[in-house]
Amino acid sequence: MQPRFITFEGGEGAGKSTQLALLDQALRYAKHKTSLTREPGGSVGGEAIRKLVVSGSVDRWDDTTEALLFMTARYDHIERLIKPALADDKWVLCDRFYDSTYVYQGMVKGVDTKWLDSLYTHLFGKFAPDCTMLLDLPADVGLKRATSRGNDAESRFERMGLEFHTKIRDAFNKRAATNEERFIIIDARAKQRDVHVQIIDALNQRYSLDLEYAL
Amino acid sequence: MQPRFITFEGGEGAGKSTQLALLDQALRYAKHKTSLTREPGGSVGGEAIRKLVVSGSVDRWDDTTEALLFMTARYDHIERLIKPALADDKWVLCDRFYDSTYVYQGMVKGVDTKWLDSLYTHLFGKFAPDCTMLLDLPADVGLKRATSRGNDAESRFERMGLEFHTKIRDAFNKRAATNEERFIIIDARAKQRDVHVQIIDALNQRYSLDLEYAL
Repeated sequence: MQPRFITFEGGEGAGKSTQLALLDQALRYAKHKTSLTREPGGSVGGEAIRKLVVSGSVDRWDDTTEALLFMTARYDHIERLIKPALADDKWVLCDRFYDSTYVYQGMVKGVDTKWLDSLYTHLFGKFAPDCTMLLDLPADVGLKRATSRGNDAESRFERMGLEFHTKIRDAFNKRAATNEERFIIIDARAKQRDVHVQIIDALNQRYSLDLEYAL
Repeated sequence: MQPRFITFEGGEGAGKSTQLALLDQALRYAKHKTSLTREPGGSVGGEAIRKLVVSGSVDRWDDTTEALLFMTARYDHIERLIKPALADDKWVLCDRFYDSTYVYQGMVKGVDTKWLDSLYTHLFGKFAPDCTMLLDLPADVGLKRATSRGNDAESRFERMGLEFHTKIRDAFNKRAATNEERFIIIDARAKQRDVHVQIIDALNQRYSLDLEYAL
């Protein structure tokens, strides 16, 4: 069957990377080819840009610079990894994508969202995820989880504070409401297995698949 | 008097950095404050992005990615170094600026120049150099000079070959012809002192200054 481009979105500590790894397993059990990737990063160039943007002091970059760095890394990622993977019949499972730029730099930090959309359209045309899972949970719960991971080298966004991350959660929910046909909202407060079950059930229904749970 | 934003453009090995250092001296002798800078780079963030773009294999980045990296570094540079320096009454002397992006990635490599201009205008409005010196010389002469510097860590563009650099020279001359009021073309085949004399004479005339030669 046709491979799909699936993105996971949500705040810090929502469990995106864990749940992506489980979905990857479930797809592979069912003999689908997959490419598990992330933004910013994914491709070699994207990962080099990632290092600039997720580390260092909170005010290291202006919001506009940050948005441009993300869009630049995304261009490299799409051209060199995502499109070739889809052409090779792989499902692409991506931890964050343009919705994160739209929400973090646009809706919350105030970079002009119309300009972000026009930049996106110039660079990528109508290319977009087939389906986006929003792993939704209260910001304080997510931040606690994220902080306990203790990945200090990549903590620039975590250090932006609870008020910021509450705005991020609200903005993701608004973004999902205005893109209903693409988004599936997952209750990420649930236990790991229950979150996984929600995701598999949703994909089975959406694409008439018969995936089994990976745990 | 009002400080000016002066950029130097031209191919590899045209002597831009040497001539900028001499102009910097001449301005300081005359008690002007200056800020000598370069693109990509200049600011802390700009220099971090520079490292990504001037090193590595020739095909490390797509042309569009390259253009985006330059524009991103430029945003950081303008906001955090150039504008504050001008506000502090400093002449800003910059080794390469947007004309290089327009010529290298746009005119020669084929990235849509209208899109580059619209991106520039969104980010920077009418902000632009007061005067641009094009240090013009045949591509083979410039490349020989650049190669003999032996800065291998920053040789990604030098390695793009003579045909490419001949196109760059022609494109810079076209760009200057369509921006006559801003550009001053300098014959960079001349000896170091003679090139310096051309530059000082041109600035003295343009801004009614009385700068003395620095050598």
